[in-house]
Amino acid sequence: MPASTTFTVTPETQVRRRPERASYDRAAAYAILDEGLVATVAFVAGETPCAIPMAYARHADVLLLHGASSSRLQRLLAGGGRVGVAVTLVDGVVLARSAMHHSLNYRSVVVFGQCSEVVEEGEKLAALARLVDHVLPGRSAESRPPNALELRATRVFALPLEEVSVKCRSGGPLEDADDLGLSHWAGVIPLELRASAPLADALHAPRGAVPAAAVAYDRRRFVPFKEVVP
Amino acid sequence: MPASTTFTVTPETQVRRRPERASYDRAAAYAILDEGLVATVAFVAGETPCAIPMAYARHADVLLLHGASSSRLQRLLAGGGRVGVAVTLVDGVVLARSAMHHSLNYRSVVVFGQCSEVVEEGEKLAALARLVDHVLPGRSAESRPPNALELRATRVFALPLEEVSVKCRSGGPLEDADDLGLSHWAGVIPLELRASAPLADALHAPRGAVPAAAVAYDRRRFVPFKEVVP
Repeated sequence: MPASTTFTVTPETQVRRRPERASYDRAAAYAILDEGLVATVAFVAGETPCAIPMAYARHADVLLLHGASSSRLQRLLAGGGRVGVAVTLVDGVVLARSAMHHSLNYRSVVVFGQCSEVVEEGEKLAALARLVDHVLPGRSAESRPPNALELRATRVFALPLEEVSVKCRSGGPLEDADDLGLSHWAGVIPLELRASAPLADALHAPRGAVPAAAVAYDRRRFVPFKEVVP
Repeated sequence: MPASTTFTVTPETQVRRRPERASYDRAAAYAILDEGLVATVAFVAGETPCAIPMAYARHADVLLLHGASSSRLQRLLAGGGRVGVAVTLVDGVVLARSAMHHSLNYRSVVVFGQCSEVVEEGEKLAALARLVDHVLPGRSAESRPPNALELRATRVFALPLEEVSVKCRSGGPLEDADDLGLSHWAGVIPLELRASAPLADALHAPRGAVPAAAVAYDRRRFVPFKEVVP
């Protein structure tokens, strides 16, 4: 069954502050997840809330996370405890005439849920390939695949993309009418994560050519990942 | 008493995975916090771990967070519950000859602690000015200060910078020796949050000139905030 195009709003995913900036649209969430590189995973260790940055990838309707089998976080994820995950892209600094209307332009996704471990070898290999392809499309086919030892040393977790909200701000400052006559400049400084030219491994000169996708690297232009429909 | 130059390592702040990438150096943490724009705050609502992106600023040895007085998160922060906060800067994509050695270059700070609310009016105004100056140095003096109504509608929280760890990765791929002969290209695609030319408020043309700090906006070159020593 294909996933619904909008997420069902729950008490936890409902955006209460500035709900006009919220969306529960699956395609909007996936575009942000496919552009981002780092997710911050919130989990409870003992009684302490922890926030840990992690690499991730989206694969169809799940968010993939992975890490060393021995790590504390992986053990927690394997335990099936609830997590909260945030991915945030910063698009600009908003300068208003009044101090209090200064803001940031951003696009963010927040996901709640419980992870399940990806254990079946074929699925695990596909998930690991997807984690590599998330940083550079097609790269998993152009690098040495994981061997048995590496597979054992790594755990992969899948978080279903069902409890999801999107929140974005874009555009210029929103001022009080009384402030529009003030002489302070107001506007936006656009910000963007930009790549510069790839640097070859300085310790061991690579034998092959730089991948074309690395030369023209631009996450804003990433074609979102599409599930291959069998 | 001046703060110690290194953070005391606790069971919670100790980096267990790849401890060689960890640091407990106050100056290293502050440089990352001063460059970043968004913090992801982890807290527990009911029994659910939540991860919420927020604007923040560092002021001396505290991290400042703020938000609408009415919001759920502000009420939680005011309750003095423990939070975890992560700030992550992405510096590059690391392409290795083997799939499993693909990585990201990054600099991250994780903070644990309990917030206290900034209630004294003078301190609150200073904190709000610092939150504005974090996005653009000197901007609080070049915009309308908060009025009494705005002050009441906003709560400011201070998280002491004492339970802090830094984790960074930099440099090229770390390959297995057996993989060095493979023909795959290996290296780094550097990434950087870059600004483009400021865009004036399109709805209401600003009367003043663009601030010089906005024209040359570059967070990598930010002079870290220094506490004025009396």
